[in-house]
Amino acid sequence: MGLMVMKFGGTSVADAERIRRAARRAIKAKTAGNDVVMVVSAMGKTTDKLISLAEEISESPPQREMDMLLTTGEQVSISLMAMAIDAAGHQAISLTGGQIGLLTDAVHMKARIQKIDADRIRQEFKQGRIVIVAGFQGVDESGEITTLGRGASDTTALALAAVLKAKVCEIYTDVDGIYTTDPRIEEKARKIDKISYDEMLELASLGAGVMHSRAIEFGKKYNVEIHVRSSFTDTKGTIITKEVEQMEDIVVSGAAVKKDLAQFILVGLPNTPGIAANLFAHVARHDVVVDDIIQTVDESGNANTSFTVEHSDLAECKLVMEEVRKEFNAKEVVCIDPVAKVSVVGVGMRSHTGVAQKMFGALAQAQVNINAITTSEIKISCIIDPSDANKALQAIHAAFELDKEPKDA
Amino acid sequence: MGLMVMKFGGTSVADAERIRRAARRAIKAKTAGNDVVMVVSAMGKTTDKLISLAEEISESPPQREMDMLLTTGEQVSISLMAMAIDAAGHQAISLTGGQIGLLTDAVHMKARIQKIDADRIRQEFKQGRIVIVAGFQGVDESGEITTLGRGASDTTALALAAVLKAKVCEIYTDVDGIYTTDPRIEEKARKIDKISYDEMLELASLGAGVMHSRAIEFGKKYNVEIHVRSSFTDTKGTIITKEVEQMEDIVVSGAAVKKDLAQFILVGLPNTPGIAANLFAHVARHDVVVDDIIQTVDESGNANTSFTVEHSDLAECKLVMEEVRKEFNAKEVVCIDPVAKVSVVGVGMRSHTGVAQKMFGALAQAQVNINAITTSEIKISCIIDPSDANKALQAIHAAFELDKEPKDA
Repeated sequence: MGLMVMKFGGTSVADAERIRRAARRAIKAKTAGNDVVMVVSAMGKTTDKLISLAEEISESPPQREMDMLLTTGEQVSISLMAMAIDAAGHQAISLTGGQIGLLTDAVHMKARIQKIDADRIRQEFKQGRIVIVAGFQGVDESGEITTLGRGASDTTALALAAVLKAKVCEIYTDVDGIYTTDPRIEEKARKIDKISYDEMLELASLGAGVMHSRAIEFGKKYNVEIHVRSSFTDTKGTIITKEVEQMEDIVVSGAAVKKDLAQFILVGLPNTPGIAANLFAHVARHDVVVDDIIQTVDESGNANTSFTVEHSDLAECKLVMEEVRKEFNAKEVVCIDPVAKVSVVGVGMRSHTGVAQKMFGALAQAQVNINAITTSEIKISCIIDPSDANKALQAIHAAFELDKEPKDA
Repeated sequence: MGLMVMKFGGTSVADAERIRRAARRAIKAKTAGNDVVMVVSAMGKTTDKLISLAEEISESPPQREMDMLLTTGEQVSISLMAMAIDAAGHQAISLTGGQIGLLTDAVHMKARIQKIDADRIRQEFKQGRIVIVAGFQGVDESGEITTLGRGASDTTALALAAVLKAKVCEIYTDVDGIYTTDPRIEEKARKIDKISYDEMLELASLGAGVMHSRAIEFGKKYNVEIHVRSSFTDTKGTIITKEVEQMEDIVVSGAAVKKDLAQFILVGLPNTPGIAANLFAHVARHDVVVDDIIQTVDESGNANTSFTVEHSDLAECKLVMEEVRKEFNAKEVVCIDPVAKVSVVGVGMRSHTGVAQKMFGALAQAQVNINAITTSEIKISCIIDPSDANKALQAIHAAFELDKEPKDA
């Protein structure tokens, strides 16, 4: 007898028929002899609708009240799911974040999980019930309702899978797995059968949606396999799992493009020890998230520092950079807006050479100019002009033959 | 410095503009130096929409899950109300039933309040905040979410007013007060300035909507004045208050009609001691609510017992009556369906004679046949044919000159 955690996203519970379909999946797993936990998101576009309601009332609603508002979406879904299972003649109980003792810190709208009281869930298992948990939400120590950030029902599911020691966490969604790249841009994109946590983390941070980074981190930390699959078919999806040696045979697993970026270049910074640390501490204090940091030193010994930010942080970052320029006595702040970033990811890069050259070659052949390059152990990113983004992605996808089934998979 | 409890019904918070209007009222009371508690219902038709959702999923959803579902409606309203007050530059906090420690018994969908933790609310007052409480909901001892029954946000408001020792509880609604009768049937219906708790309780049980009986009982028990008024104007509404002597000068305060009834007559019951108690204990076990009980004894010494039920209980009651007929050896069960009930209410009946005669005379003149008559100390009801209901009400309203301002009011 096993234990299954199944997470259903908004599109998978968007109406009564889909809720019944998800209920049938859970019942099937239950009657096969498993204890079953379902983690459910808000129905369809509910969260967006609630946000619009708030926007009608206030330009900057208090975050505590946003959490009070948004958590209702999942509460509706879990109760309806419990009704669907009951109507099909099986036992179920819906539980809010507070009721499963999902304790978080007190940071509204992006709280972090601190503890889960798995006993309550185990008691319900003993009663023979399918347990339906509201994703995305928790409570802090003083009983205030918190949320874990947009898309964080995945995180709830993986945290539950970890604490209940589930072997697999199934993520049901409206696509049938993780693709080598965005199929809306490259129609030859291919579904990946198996990918490592690290690769998936890189792809998620590069804008390949599907899963929440923190959820993948939970999976990696507690070694829970994640099965991303379609709620509309029984086809096997993509397994996100720990890295095994044979994965290294695949040099590049996926490619991604992110378009909503701006690049800042801080020109002529005095290159003294600790200056970068000071600079980015300043930026972090303003809650601006930066990526793709590059620092070079010019002939006169001054540093030039470049990084990217998402558009949502652009206005704030401009203000911060002006402060920084004065404080650190830099010559100039250049902002290139917009820019795009095209990337390839693969654990095989660790043991294979020539990946960077192949990527730059593909971009050159496609007449794409590269503004900047950043790399990690398993990733290469190029900052380019957004008008080149799609053809760049297609060129890279073709160069690494991502449309072809890997030989050893 | 006083303390105000203001309750806003669904129509008073149906959209962003109305929420802002309600927020302004609370802010006005707050800046005038009062501590303010708002009790808020679900927006507009939200509860009906949630019930429809549930009906799409299940014919008989578990009541626990209905409570989980329906309580989201009020949670949405309170968060939006807090945002509206914040946007207007004042301090507010929204609190769920669980967060104010509104403890109930464990009877889902019609739970009764057992305790309220007023300390939490007083702490928020000390922070200078307007406290916004979700109506209609509570939690039981084990943290399960419960509701107090349809329309029970009034009850939440009065219970809070009682526990916080408020002098007045304002009930904001879409009408400007309590009327002598239903203005949709009798256009000469007049707004009542002041009415006693007992009269209001009778009118509420007779189908004169506006307020929840249990809320009025709270008001009566803890001597909290209830001010029923329009959320769209500043006009004074109707004060529901304790009986004062001068009220007795008004013989009849209001008239009401209830149409969705059926009458059962159990013919030829052996008239032994305790038989009525046994009979109605049997009915109560099936959760059928009966009213207008009349018992007579015929020439052969057998009892004939008659009562009314609402249509929603009709099918269940038919089954129960057939059981009862066999068990108690009665001759026959007669069901008259539909019937209507027309009533007059007034504390003045206690000290005035001729009220019944005037009512029966008015009905006779209007050619309305009376099936049955029941009375209480402050009420007279006649069971009639539903096709006569409106003209019966109009005749009574005219006979007691309810359209005219009472002399001593």
